[in-house]
Amino acid sequence: MGRRVLLLLLMAFVMPGAPIPEPLAVKALRSQRLSSSFISRPAVVMKYTIHYFQQKIDHFGFKTDKTFNQRYLIANQHWKKEGGSILFYTGNEGDIIWFCNNTGFMWDVAEELKAMLVFAEHRYYGESLPYGANSFKDSRHLNYLTSEQALADYAELIRHLKVTIPGAENQPFIAVGGSYGGVLAAWFRMKYPHFVVGALAASAPIWQFEDMVPCGVFMEIVTTDFRRSGPNCPETIRRSWEAINRLTRNGTGLHLLSEALHLCVPLTNSQDVQHLKDWISETWVNLAMVDYPYESNFLQPLPAWPVKMVCQYLKNPHVSDTQLVKNIFKALNVYYNYSGQARCLNTSETTSSRLGSQGWSYQACTEMVMPFCTNGIDDMFEPHSWDLKKYSEDCYRQWNVRPRASWVTSMYGGKDISSHTNIIFSNGDLDPWSGGGITKNISDTLVAITIPEGAHHLDLRANNAFDPMTVLLARSLEVKYMKQWIRDFYGSLRKK
Amino acid sequence: MGRRVLLLLLMAFVMPGAPIPEPLAVKALRSQRLSSSFISRPAVVMKYTIHYFQQKIDHFGFKTDKTFNQRYLIANQHWKKEGGSILFYTGNEGDIIWFCNNTGFMWDVAEELKAMLVFAEHRYYGESLPYGANSFKDSRHLNYLTSEQALADYAELIRHLKVTIPGAENQPFIAVGGSYGGVLAAWFRMKYPHFVVGALAASAPIWQFEDMVPCGVFMEIVTTDFRRSGPNCPETIRRSWEAINRLTRNGTGLHLLSEALHLCVPLTNSQDVQHLKDWISETWVNLAMVDYPYESNFLQPLPAWPVKMVCQYLKNPHVSDTQLVKNIFKALNVYYNYSGQARCLNTSETTSSRLGSQGWSYQACTEMVMPFCTNGIDDMFEPHSWDLKKYSEDCYRQWNVRPRASWVTSMYGGKDISSHTNIIFSNGDLDPWSGGGITKNISDTLVAITIPEGAHHLDLRANNAFDPMTVLLARSLEVKYMKQWIRDFYGSLRKK
Repeated sequence: MGRRVLLLLLMAFVMPGAPIPEPLAVKALRSQRLSSSFISRPAVVMKYTIHYFQQKIDHFGFKTDKTFNQRYLIANQHWKKEGGSILFYTGNEGDIIWFCNNTGFMWDVAEELKAMLVFAEHRYYGESLPYGANSFKDSRHLNYLTSEQALADYAELIRHLKVTIPGAENQPFIAVGGSYGGVLAAWFRMKYPHFVVGALAASAPIWQFEDMVPCGVFMEIVTTDFRRSGPNCPETIRRSWEAINRLTRNGTGLHLLSEALHLCVPLTNSQDVQHLKDWISETWVNLAMVDYPYESNFLQPLPAWPVKMVCQYLKNPHVSDTQLVKNIFKALNVYYNYSGQARCLNTSETTSSRLGSQGWSYQACTEMVMPFCTNGIDDMFEPHSWDLKKYSEDCYRQWNVRPRASWVTSMYGGKDISSHTNIIFSNGDLDPWSGGGITKNISDTLVAITIPEGAHHLDLRANNAFDPMTVLLARSLEVKYMKQWIRDFYGSLRKK
Repeated sequence: MGRRVLLLLLMAFVMPGAPIPEPLAVKALRSQRLSSSFISRPAVVMKYTIHYFQQKIDHFGFKTDKTFNQRYLIANQHWKKEGGSILFYTGNEGDIIWFCNNTGFMWDVAEELKAMLVFAEHRYYGESLPYGANSFKDSRHLNYLTSEQALADYAELIRHLKVTIPGAENQPFIAVGGSYGGVLAAWFRMKYPHFVVGALAASAPIWQFEDMVPCGVFMEIVTTDFRRSGPNCPETIRRSWEAINRLTRNGTGLHLLSEALHLCVPLTNSQDVQHLKDWISETWVNLAMVDYPYESNFLQPLPAWPVKMVCQYLKNPHVSDTQLVKNIFKALNVYYNYSGQARCLNTSETTSSRLGSQGWSYQACTEMVMPFCTNGIDDMFEPHSWDLKKYSEDCYRQWNVRPRASWVTSMYGGKDISSHTNIIFSNGDLDPWSGGGITKNISDTLVAITIPEGAHHLDLRANNAFDPMTVLLARSLEVKYMKQWIRDFYGSLRKK
């Protein structure tokens, strides 16, 4: 992590200076991935209809009347007009169909809650591009990519649904989201409580801003996950950085390392080496995030408890540098080649291309400024301090914008959110994002649910035979709260 | 009211097509007025310091980093760092010094609440002009004049005060505002509850939007006020419109009417006549708003209970047209010439030039779309229906923008605000704006205070020997609530 690293919620690390992967180029691979993502929930058929809603590009100004089409999905198989509810997924930084497919929880509880499901796509992601192909062209076109605009989209969409779907007007909406989508679900309830009776904010790091949590906590949790999965695993990884540094002091070493790691594009200089280390770091981070108890395909197709499998190859820190990097390759191969079809490792991407890396890179450079750091002692990474000034320079170079590190706190309240109500903050202890999440109750109606064996929003995933008891409990508690909100809603409706 | 009429919160009516008064041209008059506004509260000396805070012109976009200086006033004579509080006036559509001088309530309670007073100027008003003299040039320059931007200014200013004033960080802020400023105070508590423990929203018509209240209610209250002040008064005014219409059917009549009303600029055509009637209507509205029980100088220098004095001249509806308009003149003269110095009546303005008519006209054409109508039966005005389409056309012609009539409801919740807490909605029964205000408790912490003998935010004015008992009770109740919020704040601070 020698240079600035932009941590993405789902994508984890993306280097702003690095070439940005072209989503369309891997379209074929993408659909292959998606089909296999159905493996873990054969019980529920995800049938939805696709819709588009004309949104103002700028909710907060009147100079322009321009609009764009926001995509959203509706599934109403289990919806009941009598006593029903509407679960509204506040889409995050990617294709909404991908989130829809990976939020089995909503499908699983739809019948019980007599719920219509709505999945709303976040502007500037998936098909919801305000300026089409030009959306990421420059800071002028990107100017309307903010959380405030996205929340306003959700508000206007709900208003539209209430007006146009007979029976929806007098039903309780509940916001649901995971990761950045969970942050948005919580913020939506805070800012627009008239549109949703409550929010389930799964793995939502709403405190991963400014100095609300120590900048090192994220990578410490990653390290803890790896330690838990293999006592020597973090130490082996920690030593790997020096091994890579030693090996790459000369051209022969660069060649040797490229071979050992089966890189598609061989390393040629020290910049490549830095990029390689960032990419490996991001891989460990992603593995911690998706350390699910069963075979899955969220960021990549993976075995059950992938970190454990990775750590099987990283048991011995005290081997030769060459052997160490060979072991690292085996570990990386778990993540990048579980299907066994990859011929080489491609360091230009780490996650599903259904995530919009350009959009998130811009958001991280404007509002979503999340300080991260490592010290190499409490974590298994090379030391790297948080440097807002450098971060700002990099952002200015890449996007011609400057981050406003404190704006999110001003806007959404930081740690001072106790006056709000009806938000569930769920976090898995395995999830590095839990470090910036709310893991203790704030009040009777701002409640924290922790899932000791949970990785990144495990609770939002479909029921699975291998689910640990703790996530089943979490889900049943979540449903209990939602039912309470729905009851309260109908109770006060009757009073009126 | 033959053509579209834009109702302003304090200025009441402004015709968008009409020439807009030049604020600077009447600077001399303005200061004269201001000095006399001290008449009603000699007890408290208003000593404040003037400050400027650099605000982002656009809080919701990152394309530009441009800033402007927001003006704010601070008075800290009575502020105590131990157990004190900070009353924060959320400035409305005018010069902040004018609001400061007319919000004696804050000065009167400062000692009791150990309070620092802060008066923050609303962007695009007073000296807080984002683009200086070009601020009102076109829709591009006006694009950042929205309530959301103004609220964000207040949030950022409070953050700044907390950081820079030793002792302010751990003190409870309370939002206070009247009229549109009261709307902002309420909305600020709703949207930024982390910055203020509560809000006093005086005479805040937060429901004067869309179809939340009947569009006729405002003018009906004006009419009721006049009836209460003279049983035949509304009927006389109702008949005056037809009298004017009859008189002005020919050139002689125009001349005669101009003479009878002592107009500075004689009427020359039917358009002038319509403008005249709009101007007279606006005068009656303003009189109802400032029907205070003592001599005052808010919109104009006026006697105690001015509507009563006006109605003394409007006792007999059944006189000749000529006599009727002569009586109307005498009535108007109460409003426009209480000082006795005016030589003629100037139909180009009705209120203090310290209000920013350009800014409000734009706001009324974008977010602040308030439907008003009359039917000539339940009110004393010429019938006029609410026509959003025509309104929109007029706005487009004047400002090149289109109103979004439902946006405020989406953004701020309309009638569905019960999840919020700690807002006092105070309304005077004499105030036409009370028709769009909250006059019944919504919950234990969203409370309504009504003042039977109160006009527009009488409770925010300085204590006065002629105050009716009802406003004294209202103020003491307001202080009681504020003290409770302050106690709660320190209580939860101690727990932490």
